[in-house]
Amino acid sequence: MIAPYNLRGLLVIISGPSGTGKGTVIKSLCNSNSRINILPSVTTRSPRTGEKEGHSYFFRTKDEFMEMVRQNKLIEWVEYCGNFYGTPRDQLENSLEEGFDVILEKDVIGALEIKKAYPDSVTIFIAPPSLNELKRRIESRGTESADIIEKRLNRALEELEYISNYDYVVVNENVEETANAINCIITAEKFKTKRSKDISQKIKFHEVK
Amino acid sequence: MIAPYNLRGLLVIISGPSGTGKGTVIKSLCNSNSRINILPSVTTRSPRTGEKEGHSYFFRTKDEFMEMVRQNKLIEWVEYCGNFYGTPRDQLENSLEEGFDVILEKDVIGALEIKKAYPDSVTIFIAPPSLNELKRRIESRGTESADIIEKRLNRALEELEYISNYDYVVVNENVEETANAINCIITAEKFKTKRSKDISQKIKFHEVK
Repeated sequence: MIAPYNLRGLLVIISGPSGTGKGTVIKSLCNSNSRINILPSVTTRSPRTGEKEGHSYFFRTKDEFMEMVRQNKLIEWVEYCGNFYGTPRDQLENSLEEGFDVILEKDVIGALEIKKAYPDSVTIFIAPPSLNELKRRIESRGTESADIIEKRLNRALEELEYISNYDYVVVNENVEETANAINCIITAEKFKTKRSKDISQKIKFHEVK
Repeated sequence: MIAPYNLRGLLVIISGPSGTGKGTVIKSLCNSNSRINILPSVTTRSPRTGEKEGHSYFFRTKDEFMEMVRQNKLIEWVEYCGNFYGTPRDQLENSLEEGFDVILEKDVIGALEIKKAYPDSVTIFIAPPSLNELKRRIESRGTESADIIEKRLNRALEELEYISNYDYVVVNENVEETANAINCIITAEKFKTKRSKDISQKIKFHEVK
């Protein structure tokens, strides 16, 4: 919308319970804004059909992954169902330096770890309008058993307790409106004075572009 | 754009050097957003031709003004060229309670005083792209003497030193873009978790509207 006074991109970390519609919102966000990159995780799990290196994930062997951990090349990582998942530092830094806003989709624990490492990042929680509505959305997929639905709702209840740790919360009633809200948050964040520390000098001595 | 989860309006305090185009930006903002109210100041100076009570200013006698001061009905006030100017608390509270976002145009001192009294308010500094451009804009009006122009530029230099005390800084290169940026800031601020304190309870027990 307006050229930022700081060329470095913004790191945006998005969380929200499964079934809230995060994925669809992020897709809509990327379609509407070419300055946004989604950063895939590094994983040790095998690619599924159609998954491409560097798109869905960066695929690495367990040895390669552990070497990245030793070399501090992952901002955070977790083991989940026997596979490892991590956030690659170099790819993130490159995208931010190139001026891209980078979106990371993380669970509540990962989000807070990355916020600690990148205090200038922006954390956004995407929430369902209600637990009933979340239940309805998960059930309408028709792919999960009652047992799994129950587990997801319990997990969602736990995750909702973390909302106050986030900078922003957007209730996803409508994908387009939620994507617009996030676009607005990204735009607004760039006008924060804390991100434009030398701006009064620039105004005094030359033109701000 | 999206219904806020909190019905109370947002208090937005706008400052910026004379000649930056604040007034035009605020007018464009109000034309594009019917949920915004501009709150006029209370003043003891006489109305000029065309100035209406409650539009340009709330006009009061000096005695009435001093009675408001004694009753703590002004959030802040100053004397300027023998007249008094103040920000009326009741009118501000009423507008915010009715859910209107309220814009106050204040100098750097007044802005910081109001921010202290209303820590949840949002402060925005509208800046010129450069001092040269500010000079050009003031000169192009053709109404000020070289002496007055010099004084305004010196005052602008002083005001620029306050930018880091503001939450946001927007460089006004284009009125419409600046108004859009401020609209985005207002929208984004409403999604801050600090303004939605009981939202996880609302999501758990009923629908968020």
